[in-house]
Amino acid sequence: MKKVGILGGGQLGRMLLQAAANYPVETYVLEKDDDCPAAHLCTHFTKGSISDFDDVYHFGKGLDAITIEIESVNIEALKKLESEGVKVYPRPSALEIIKNKIVQKNFYVENQIPTSPYLVTSNKSELNNHLSFLPAAHKLAEGGYDGRGVEILKNQNDLEKGFDESAVLEKLVTIKKEISIIVAVGEDGKNALYPPVEMIFNKDLNLLEYQLCPANIAEKILWKAEAIALAVVKNLKSPGIFAVELFIDIDDNVLVNETAPRVHNSGHHTIEAAYSSQFDMLWRIILAYPLGYTKQIMNSSMVNLIGEENYKGEARYENLEEVLQIENVFVHIYGKKETRPGRKMGHVTVLSNERQELIHIANKVKQLLKVVS
Amino acid sequence: MKKVGILGGGQLGRMLLQAAANYPVETYVLEKDDDCPAAHLCTHFTKGSISDFDDVYHFGKGLDAITIEIESVNIEALKKLESEGVKVYPRPSALEIIKNKIVQKNFYVENQIPTSPYLVTSNKSELNNHLSFLPAAHKLAEGGYDGRGVEILKNQNDLEKGFDESAVLEKLVTIKKEISIIVAVGEDGKNALYPPVEMIFNKDLNLLEYQLCPANIAEKILWKAEAIALAVVKNLKSPGIFAVELFIDIDDNVLVNETAPRVHNSGHHTIEAAYSSQFDMLWRIILAYPLGYTKQIMNSSMVNLIGEENYKGEARYENLEEVLQIENVFVHIYGKKETRPGRKMGHVTVLSNERQELIHIANKVKQLLKVVS
Repeated sequence: MKKVGILGGGQLGRMLLQAAANYPVETYVLEKDDDCPAAHLCTHFTKGSISDFDDVYHFGKGLDAITIEIESVNIEALKKLESEGVKVYPRPSALEIIKNKIVQKNFYVENQIPTSPYLVTSNKSELNNHLSFLPAAHKLAEGGYDGRGVEILKNQNDLEKGFDESAVLEKLVTIKKEISIIVAVGEDGKNALYPPVEMIFNKDLNLLEYQLCPANIAEKILWKAEAIALAVVKNLKSPGIFAVELFIDIDDNVLVNETAPRVHNSGHHTIEAAYSSQFDMLWRIILAYPLGYTKQIMNSSMVNLIGEENYKGEARYENLEEVLQIENVFVHIYGKKETRPGRKMGHVTVLSNERQELIHIANKVKQLLKVVS
Repeated sequence: MKKVGILGGGQLGRMLLQAAANYPVETYVLEKDDDCPAAHLCTHFTKGSISDFDDVYHFGKGLDAITIEIESVNIEALKKLESEGVKVYPRPSALEIIKNKIVQKNFYVENQIPTSPYLVTSNKSELNNHLSFLPAAHKLAEGGYDGRGVEILKNQNDLEKGFDESAVLEKLVTIKKEISIIVAVGEDGKNALYPPVEMIFNKDLNLLEYQLCPANIAEKILWKAEAIALAVVKNLKSPGIFAVELFIDIDDNVLVNETAPRVHNSGHHTIEAAYSSQFDMLWRIILAYPLGYTKQIMNSSMVNLIGEENYKGEARYENLEEVLQIENVFVHIYGKKETRPGRKMGHVTVLSNERQELIHIANKVKQLLKVVS
């Protein structure tokens, strides 16, 4: 059996391990918290820091392959492991491009991949030189995750919120839709695209309400989006799973927002909705099996379960019973003992071929199910 | 989080734990082999014997609930645990009825549940008194599993194969079809039936070829079968998952073959084919959630992967890549390091609404995929 390690032990690792149990593979997880969501679902757990060279190197030495569930890993250690014959998914070279938002933006431009205009800033005071560039999103070059490390700067009054370190200032485009395409790339370069997912936002709060798959977009836009997603992964030159997040602006231009070189929140519905889920697919890639089938079994919507504001402590799931009574929902709770405001605690997938039903039940789940303490 | 233990660490435990990772629950497994399929997917693993009173009692003490993946467990320990407040699924009283095939047969008769005629034997020589009862199946009262403990006695020449201990001699009925119905029973007595599964046998070898769901039976027979399955679980008076295996004879009589008080091989297709799988369903019952939805998402067939004759040693899966190339198959390999002739090593589910396609692909998988060493 192949020995495969995962850097990071959060919910993505947990769902990877659920899928791994369908294949002959010995699994290893490296993570600081030995009670993390993935700690008890792997063959071997190692307590350690995924950003520490020695921890990653010693963890990876002797494994056949290694993958990640978060970008903030020690790339130097992965490079050394790669040079010593450990297969790394995604390649450290691709991770290096994506991990730093400045390098990532440059990569799009160098490869003629459409993306929103941007400037690079190295401290807060520089922002004063770019007032005419606002409104813009200020994004930390490294270390942002799950909404952290991003600030919207509308005008001069917002400059105080800007980052005083290396960052990208991205011009805000007027967005009609936000979509994501999960792409699988095999070791042999073969690829497979999942149908695009549409993000539905609460316009008042600018918060993601739910996701719909497939996205409701014109065929012409789908073709553009797929061509761009393929251009991204081809130029990254790496096997693995990639989530290419795209904006569609009011003129129907398709622009890359950002790319994640790993299984991704926008692919969670594939567990039930697709023949081969994004998690199954990554194992197929790592274990050198043929790529899976990305077609939807049924259309889907997906709601994230986020820790409610003002609650911190042992998690309780309000109205979980009511949600579990709905026939066509699939509940995934990540087993995190403690909830915190904004923490991702689970997700719920809805299957139906009726778009109105997908929307209706997603809204109902969103209203009912609350993570409190 | 509730603490729930599983007695036994085989593939049923493994699939239960895959499903458990969707809910907030702390899982415990008791099993002699600390490298068994379920050993690395639980929060806490305990090495010990599921048939030993002390091992089971000490394992279960302090847990909120306990369930089984095989019948050959120490029932006395489960009774003591139950009396001390641990919830047991199924109830030890139901397990006692089912564990011993003589008691099980008597239970059907006492409750007017149709089953094939039978006699009780306590040693091999008694079989000579029952020659006119042949052909019959001789089944060990206790300890049979996975085809072991059953001998077909056609005539006097076969008597040597009979068991020299407590056993049931079941008259062979002329079977038209063999089906199975999985029934879920909640703590409150509510129940839910899955669509029946049809077993397709190789008539020459009398070996299960594959299973189809739903079974191809007339509505009148479906009603009979469902009524009988419900009568079985109602009289067992226990929450849990039950597989009621039924014969349909040439006169369209429906007879109970036997009942398993746990998740069952004939329910494996529900992982992909049903909204709530049998594994998901058992967690819903144990965690006091509402029962799940038993409707099929799509029709299905299922093929067991059995260790080939003449191979013993580290398992290899011949033609696995070819099978993984088929778009609508789902491969489950149980991660057992060693194959042995007849050992259950995995299963493959096929989804399609075309019955001919289900049969065609099941046969193809059966022919291609071989477990060798």
